[in-house]
Amino acid sequence: MYATINEANAAVIAEIRRARPRLVDVRPAGECIPALAEGPVLMHAGPPIEWSAMTGPMKGAVLGACLFEGWAKTAEEAEAFAAAKIRFVPCHDNSAVGPMGGITSAHMPVLVVKNAEQGNVAYCNLNEGIGKVMRFGAFEGEVQTRLAWMRDVLAPVLSAALKKKADGIDLTALMAQAITMGDEFHQRNIAASALLMKALAADIAAGEASREDKEAVLRFLERTDQFFLNVAMAHCKCVMDAGHAVGAGSIVTAMTRNGRDFGIRVAGLGNRWFTAPVNTPVGLFFTGYSQADANPDIGDSAITETFGIGGAAMIAAPGVTRFVGSGGFSDALEISEEMREIYVEANTTLQIPTWDFQGACIGLDVRRVVETGITPVINTGIAHRLPGIGQVGAGTVRPPLACFEQALEALAAARTKAA
Amino acid sequence: MYATINEANAAVIAEIRRARPRLVDVRPAGECIPALAEGPVLMHAGPPIEWSAMTGPMKGAVLGACLFEGWAKTAEEAEAFAAAKIRFVPCHDNSAVGPMGGITSAHMPVLVVKNAEQGNVAYCNLNEGIGKVMRFGAFEGEVQTRLAWMRDVLAPVLSAALKKKADGIDLTALMAQAITMGDEFHQRNIAASALLMKALAADIAAGEASREDKEAVLRFLERTDQFFLNVAMAHCKCVMDAGHAVGAGSIVTAMTRNGRDFGIRVAGLGNRWFTAPVNTPVGLFFTGYSQADANPDIGDSAITETFGIGGAAMIAAPGVTRFVGSGGFSDALEISEEMREIYVEANTTLQIPTWDFQGACIGLDVRRVVETGITPVINTGIAHRLPGIGQVGAGTVRPPLACFEQALEALAAARTKAA
Repeated sequence: MYATINEANAAVIAEIRRARPRLVDVRPAGECIPALAEGPVLMHAGPPIEWSAMTGPMKGAVLGACLFEGWAKTAEEAEAFAAAKIRFVPCHDNSAVGPMGGITSAHMPVLVVKNAEQGNVAYCNLNEGIGKVMRFGAFEGEVQTRLAWMRDVLAPVLSAALKKKADGIDLTALMAQAITMGDEFHQRNIAASALLMKALAADIAAGEASREDKEAVLRFLERTDQFFLNVAMAHCKCVMDAGHAVGAGSIVTAMTRNGRDFGIRVAGLGNRWFTAPVNTPVGLFFTGYSQADANPDIGDSAITETFGIGGAAMIAAPGVTRFVGSGGFSDALEISEEMREIYVEANTTLQIPTWDFQGACIGLDVRRVVETGITPVINTGIAHRLPGIGQVGAGTVRPPLACFEQALEALAAARTKAA
Repeated sequence: MYATINEANAAVIAEIRRARPRLVDVRPAGECIPALAEGPVLMHAGPPIEWSAMTGPMKGAVLGACLFEGWAKTAEEAEAFAAAKIRFVPCHDNSAVGPMGGITSAHMPVLVVKNAEQGNVAYCNLNEGIGKVMRFGAFEGEVQTRLAWMRDVLAPVLSAALKKKADGIDLTALMAQAITMGDEFHQRNIAASALLMKALAADIAAGEASREDKEAVLRFLERTDQFFLNVAMAHCKCVMDAGHAVGAGSIVTAMTRNGRDFGIRVAGLGNRWFTAPVNTPVGLFFTGYSQADANPDIGDSAITETFGIGGAAMIAAPGVTRFVGSGGFSDALEISEEMREIYVEANTTLQIPTWDFQGACIGLDVRRVVETGITPVINTGIAHRLPGIGQVGAGTVRPPLACFEQALEALAAARTKAA
C-alpha cells in the first residue's frame, strides 16, 4: 500500500482536502440510518456506552427521546424503558455525529450532508438553540414542544428550501467565508449561521408552507446563532470519513466523548476505538453555576477539532477565548501556534486573516501528539452533571494522552505484524 | 461656551458617543427631503458642484436620474435638461449622504435612520448591488429596470418589515457585532449585511406582499454584500450631525468628495466647506481596467472615515487590505496604528478583536492632522472616469492636507475674533 506512514498520511490528507460536502436535505433520522429502524434504538455521542454508565446529560436526553418517540409517558417510565429495552449505538458507527449527549431517535430530523467528490454521506441532528435543550440533558416541557415543532415544521420547511437548490449548499465555500468572519465553528458559528440563513431565506419565503410556518422558521434561524454548529459537525464527519477510507497512516479521523470515555479513531486502525477516561472541561459558568456542576467531557462535537477547526482555530475567533475563559488575542494566537505542532499541514481552503492568512490546521498526527505530549485543545459547551438542567457554561478541555499512546502502540504492532 | 478646544472636542465626542441611530423606515426621498420637492432638484455627493464641472460617474448618474424621473427619454435629452433645468444640492446639506455620485431624486427610496437620543434623522439611498449601477455612473437598461424595482418592490417590502419592529433596528448594536466579524463598513459589509438580513427575513416573510416579491427582495439581499454600506453611511451621518450640533471645537464632522473637490466640515465652523482638489484613488482594478481609467475621488462614503471606521478601522478587516491593494495583516495594523495619531479617542462601543479588543478610532481632530501631516486613509470603490461604465476597482486615497490647514486657520481666526 504505502511505503511509509508519512506517505499514508499524505494520502489521508489528500482525501480530506478533496472532500466537498454539501448540505442537501433535512430528513427524519429513521429514513437515513438503518439501525434506527431496528426496534427501540438510540444513537449516542462518543464511543460505545451502556445505559447504566451514562452521565446525567446523556441520561436526560435519553428520557427526552423516550417521551418524544412515545415509548414512555413519564420520566420514571422512560428510565425503566431505557434500562430494559433500548439498544444504544454510537452516532459515529452510523455515519452520524451529535453534540453533547448526541441522542438521536428515528423521528428526529437530521441534516443530510453529501460529499460531492467521494460520495459518502454524514448526518447530524438539528441545533435546538439555547436554554433548556435536550442535547444538554433537559427533557420535559418546552424541550418536547420544540422537538415536535422541529419535526413537523422546521425540518419540512428546510428540506423544501434545500431542494430548490440544484445541488444543495457548498459547505466548503461557506465555511471558508465564515472563518474570515470570526467563527471557529465549535463555540462560535454566528457568521456561518447568518450566511446559511442568507442562502436559504429566499427559498424559504418562496416555499409552499404557510406564511406563519415560514415566519416561525426564519425567526428560529434568526435567534439560533449556533445553528451552524451541527452543520459544521456533519461537514467534519463527512470529510474525516473520506480520509478514514484510505485505511492507513497515523492521522486521527475521530475524537469523541461519551461523558465517561474519550475515544479516538485513526485512519490506519479501522473502526477500533482507543479510549481513556475523559477530563472535565474548565471554563466560565453561567450565573448560579460553578465548576462543581460541570459534567465530564461529552459529545461528538470534537469532530471539529479532529478536522482542525474549533480549538485548533482559536486564533480565527479571538472573541471565543474570552467566552471559554482562555484570555485575549495573544492567548488565542498561542493556542493555535501550539496546535501547529501536532497537526501535519495547513488547510489552505480555510485561510485565517488574524493568523496572517495562514490556513487552519489539518491532519492531526498520533505520532506528533505522543512525541510532543501536546494534546488537542477542544472548545466545548459544559453541561450540568445532573439530568434535566442543561448548559451551565463553556470552556476548554484536552483529551487524555493515553488514547494517543494506545493508538501509537497499535500502529507499531500492526507494522511489526505486516513486516 | 467652552474654555478650550479640548473641552469643546470632548463635548462633540460625547454627543457622537451618545447617539443611537436606528433604521426605522424606507421612504421615497421626496417625502423626507423638502428640497427635492422644489422642481427638478437632484442631490449629489460632496461639496457644491455645478453640472459642467462634474466628472463622468456623477454625470452618468444624473442622466440616470433624469430618465428615472421621466424628465428625459434619451441620454441626449437628459444632458440638455441637466444643463438647463436641474438645481443641484449637496446631500450633506439635506441630512443625507450618497455613495459615489450620490445622485438622489425625489422618487428614489431612501433609508430613514433616526437617532433615538438626540432625535436627528439621516438619509441615504439604497445600495443597488454590483455591476452596472447608477452610483458608479451607469444609467441605461438594467440600471433603470433595477431602480424601478427598488422603488416599486424593494422599498415597500423593506418599509413594511421595518414597521413590524417596535423601534426599528439598533444600528449601534448591529455594527458592534459586525466589526468583530471582519467588517470595516466601507469596502466590507458582508457581516453587517447578513446580520441585517437575519434581522429582517422573518418580518419580510410574514408581510402582505406577494410571495414572488418577498422572494425577490430576499434574493436581492442575499446577493448584495454591500447592502449595509448605505446603512452604515446613514448611521455615520446621523451620528456626526449629532456631534456637529455642539457647534464648537476642531473635530471633523464631514469629509466628502464630488470628483473635483474634497470638502470637510468642522464642528466649530458651522456649515462652511473647506475644500481642495481631490486626489485619485490607487488600488486594484478589475480585469481590463487600469489606473488610467480611474475617476478622481468621489462620494459621501468618507463619512465612515469621518466617524472612525472604513480605512481607520482597516485592522478590523484585514481581508480588505488585499482587496484595496494595501497588503496583509501587518499592513492593516500599521494603517490603523497610524490613524490613532489623528483621532482623539477610542470608540469603546466598537471593539476590534484583531486589535486586541481596542476600540475603533473616534474624534478626527483637525489640529492633529495638521501637526502630524498624517491625513486619514479612505477605503474606496473606484469609478471609471467616463459616464456609463461603472465600477472598475477598489483602493485607498487620502484627502488633500490643504482642507485641514484651511480649517485650522479658520479656527484660529474665529478664536482671535472671539477674544
